[in-house]
Amino acid sequence: MKFSVSCDHLLAAMRASDAIVEKKTTIPILSNVLLEAEGEHVAITGTDLDLQLGYKIPAEVEKPGKVTIPHDALKRLLGGVPKGATVRIETADEGQITIQSGRSRYKLQTLPAEDFPNLTFEKGAASFPLDENAMAHLFGRTSFAMSTEETRYYLNGVFLHPVTNANGVTCLRGVTTDGHRLAQATVEMPEGGELPAGVIVPRKTVGVISSLFVKGATVRVSETKIQFAWADVVLTSKLIDGSFPDYQRVCPALDPDAALLTLSRNEVISALTRLTAIAKSSSAIRVDITALTASIRDVDSGSGTEELEGELTRALTVGEGKHAADYFGVNASYLREMLAQFTTEHVSLQMIDPGSPLRLVPVGVSPDYVGVLMPMRA
Amino acid sequence: MKFSVSCDHLLAAMRASDAIVEKKTTIPILSNVLLEAEGEHVAITGTDLDLQLGYKIPAEVEKPGKVTIPHDALKRLLGGVPKGATVRIETADEGQITIQSGRSRYKLQTLPAEDFPNLTFEKGAASFPLDENAMAHLFGRTSFAMSTEETRYYLNGVFLHPVTNANGVTCLRGVTTDGHRLAQATVEMPEGGELPAGVIVPRKTVGVISSLFVKGATVRVSETKIQFAWADVVLTSKLIDGSFPDYQRVCPALDPDAALLTLSRNEVISALTRLTAIAKSSSAIRVDITALTASIRDVDSGSGTEELEGELTRALTVGEGKHAADYFGVNASYLREMLAQFTTEHVSLQMIDPGSPLRLVPVGVSPDYVGVLMPMRA
Repeated sequence: MKFSVSCDHLLAAMRASDAIVEKKTTIPILSNVLLEAEGEHVAITGTDLDLQLGYKIPAEVEKPGKVTIPHDALKRLLGGVPKGATVRIETADEGQITIQSGRSRYKLQTLPAEDFPNLTFEKGAASFPLDENAMAHLFGRTSFAMSTEETRYYLNGVFLHPVTNANGVTCLRGVTTDGHRLAQATVEMPEGGELPAGVIVPRKTVGVISSLFVKGATVRVSETKIQFAWADVVLTSKLIDGSFPDYQRVCPALDPDAALLTLSRNEVISALTRLTAIAKSSSAIRVDITALTASIRDVDSGSGTEELEGELTRALTVGEGKHAADYFGVNASYLREMLAQFTTEHVSLQMIDPGSPLRLVPVGVSPDYVGVLMPMRA
Repeated sequence: MKFSVSCDHLLAAMRASDAIVEKKTTIPILSNVLLEAEGEHVAITGTDLDLQLGYKIPAEVEKPGKVTIPHDALKRLLGGVPKGATVRIETADEGQITIQSGRSRYKLQTLPAEDFPNLTFEKGAASFPLDENAMAHLFGRTSFAMSTEETRYYLNGVFLHPVTNANGVTCLRGVTTDGHRLAQATVEMPEGGELPAGVIVPRKTVGVISSLFVKGATVRVSETKIQFAWADVVLTSKLIDGSFPDYQRVCPALDPDAALLTLSRNEVISALTRLTAIAKSSSAIRVDITALTASIRDVDSGSGTEELEGELTRALTVGEGKHAADYFGVNASYLREMLAQFTTEHVSLQMIDPGSPLRLVPVGVSPDYVGVLMPMRA
């Protein structure tokens, strides 16, 4: 194998693989990347056995071939090479590879390309395009609510599935929940996107998609894997093998009468930031719906009250509308994080009674994003 | 106590104290700051018992008084208040304090001002001005070589002391060493700066000076403390009670004939960055003085060679000039870090023989900065 490439291109590929290639692994070859030189390209592949990133860059290939070399050493080495330089890479004796650029000459230990695990993608059931906005909506705005509890592995990702909306139109939806909060984002169904069933895209994959600033991709889904392809990059990921719970049960379709409060998003986020500033033992706040205030009481540090910028739209009642309720409790950090995902100026809060989940929907646009928060004692 | 202040001013004071006030401490009052309202100012003081920062801001004081409140909660709370807002602070019942701004109202737990430790500064032996450049030179360019070993506590700081230079002029010098490397920076003696003996300024104090971007200060030194005063800020620190070793012994005054190599600083830093990229087990490099190359060999990852941009100025010999030596060994990371402190385009390396310390001095300017590195086997 012998080829020349732009250092900048190779470095970009190394940096993209950074989120996938594990620094500490008991399987040495997993800290390597696979280089394959053929035709007018070099393909660079990194994997952690569950997730694989393939990156193709233009190269002047003198002698085709393939080999694996340490990812971290190569990335750091290239990071020190002047911008715009050309790097020449060639296999050498004793399982080594030489890397030359300017007045620098390095030899790195390799491992055989044959031993590199390959996450093959079997023919898929669905293949559809997802644009930048749909990607950001489905993954970017739901990822914060993914569970990190390993025992509930089926919640450790984004549940992507087809749904039929109130108007009978089929849509594509991403849902995440950790049991305390839930986020659901819905987009128009892309052509070919009718997955036969829902799939769960793992947390690490969702993170990689966000970190690589994907501008939109072609998505392919098989029974066990999902693949995102854009430009000269292919990201292949195993799916989580589990059943996502029936989230609709905690997420009741409330009628508009259930609207309770309309809040000014930015002002309330700012108020919640201050309230959580003094939260040491718990970030439970009490929202007083008649005074329209939120307050916190922390045994260690003190207490605080914020007037909320918003409007009360109906009374909150307990026990089949018999008794009026003055307040409800909620986690201030969760409420703030949830509000931050919305894009509208106002957000409507809906609640049946103080013991039931709090539902958040945007005001003035179609509810393509819904947040649910479990109530708290406050 | 009752006063109004600009939130921005109070927040600036809280952020400045951040480097001093300990987040986790077994003495609760040390995580508080002392507020003292009097006249047209509020003084804010934070301490860790060894180091104390006093910050004075303009205030509208309605009722003078003093109290201590939690630093972290106040800082985070003020961080959420809109810029330009006014904050009203007033003592309340049950040892609490109220903080009001706009539509926010908070109560924080206080602790009595009487219990707050005060690092009084006894009358000093020396008082002198140090300008921005002298501060950066004496502390900023030597701090990297301070030891972090607690058993060698007397090396955990910058040794500030008067010296007489080759021309018989008294200067002020800062020296740091961790046993592997040494940095010494010398400035003209400021008026009044003739300390009777050397003092050791602790690591944390040196770090705080750098983090606060001190523009120059009036320095006062007593037997046990040092104080830096600038604008409305006073930083008081205990000195390290110990003897700094006689560093001149490892730092021989070599004559110009001892010059061995002249290196182009930026190019060599860049080459060392690449060499250390593949260093896993050791960053020892071998500098070949006839080929003018630096090379590294790492059993795990591979090897590398860099041609060095520079010039050989004389031969290196072993055993009283009898045998020629072809190379010497040095730690690449230390050499790179040391070169980064210089400001000249070229740096001269001086060495008597491959087993003796390597001395670095700037080329083309008076040697107001000297670095020393212990040799390594390579």
